[in-house]
Amino acid sequence: MSDLFLEAAIEEARKGRAAGGIPIGSVLVHNGQIIGRGHNQRVQHGSVIHHAEMNCLENAGRLPGKIYRECVLYSTLSPCPMCSGAALLYGIPKIVVGENKTFQGPEAYVRSQGVTVEIVNDPTCIELMEKFIAEEPTLWNEDIGV
Amino acid sequence: MSDLFLEAAIEEARKGRAAGGIPIGSVLVHNGQIIGRGHNQRVQHGSVIHHAEMNCLENAGRLPGKIYRECVLYSTLSPCPMCSGAALLYGIPKIVVGENKTFQGPEAYVRSQGVTVEIVNDPTCIELMEKFIAEEPTLWNEDIGV
Repeated sequence: MSDLFLEAAIEEARKGRAAGGIPIGSVLVHNGQIIGRGHNQRVQHGSVIHHAEMNCLENAGRLPGKIYRECVLYSTLSPCPMCSGAALLYGIPKIVVGENKTFQGPEAYVRSQGVTVEIVNDPTCIELMEKFIAEEPTLWNEDIGV
Repeated sequence: MSDLFLEAAIEEARKGRAAGGIPIGSVLVHNGQIIGRGHNQRVQHGSVIHHAEMNCLENAGRLPGKIYRECVLYSTLSPCPMCSGAALLYGIPKIVVGENKTFQGPEAYVRSQGVTVEIVNDPTCIELMEKFIAEEPTLWNEDIGV
């Protein structure tokens, strides 16, 4: 796996799991530079909105619309409706998805709105989630509103 | 205007504006009780994800999926793609919208996913936003990614 940005997102996911949380990570990339990174905070901060992508966007801070429209959002997992919606709100034109085997967000809808969604299906991303879901199915279901 | 829940959302919006923020408020209602409330926190907390509905959901805390599926989400303004997505993620079946004259989120898509979206077009909600947008157009554009 050669994509350094997806690698950084995986590092975020691992950091989250190491803290007892859900192993999903995300980075925001602008002109080849990481300008935000984050991971799911449901366990760590009792948050229902800090999914990895949301936490990443929040950590990137307040940015002009112009910047978002030049960004690529990386996530280890296919973005859920909320995180997909955040990308649409800010006009982020491209999302690189580590995997969509263990969960699939509204990719077709996101694409229909003009966003490029690239699915890597990286074995490390899949393994991280498969292990986590097997270990904590109830927590996982809570995170996706099941 | 006779809906006490929309009235509570308007109170949140006013609280936000009084603190120098963006006047959008939201409440989450379960079985006729308000279980969460909040308002936009872009200015107050430098947040790009705490739109009113998101702040309301976060303040409601971690809830079982079953509860969300019995809730009504009130917002003074038509929910943007991010907030609409949050409602979809958690399977909230009904959204009551104060107004969609000054901004319109993806209502058709939300409805296509089985959610009831009720538009009130309350004059107070419209007035709050019209006044704010006239006063702070740049801030407003930032909040909707323009």
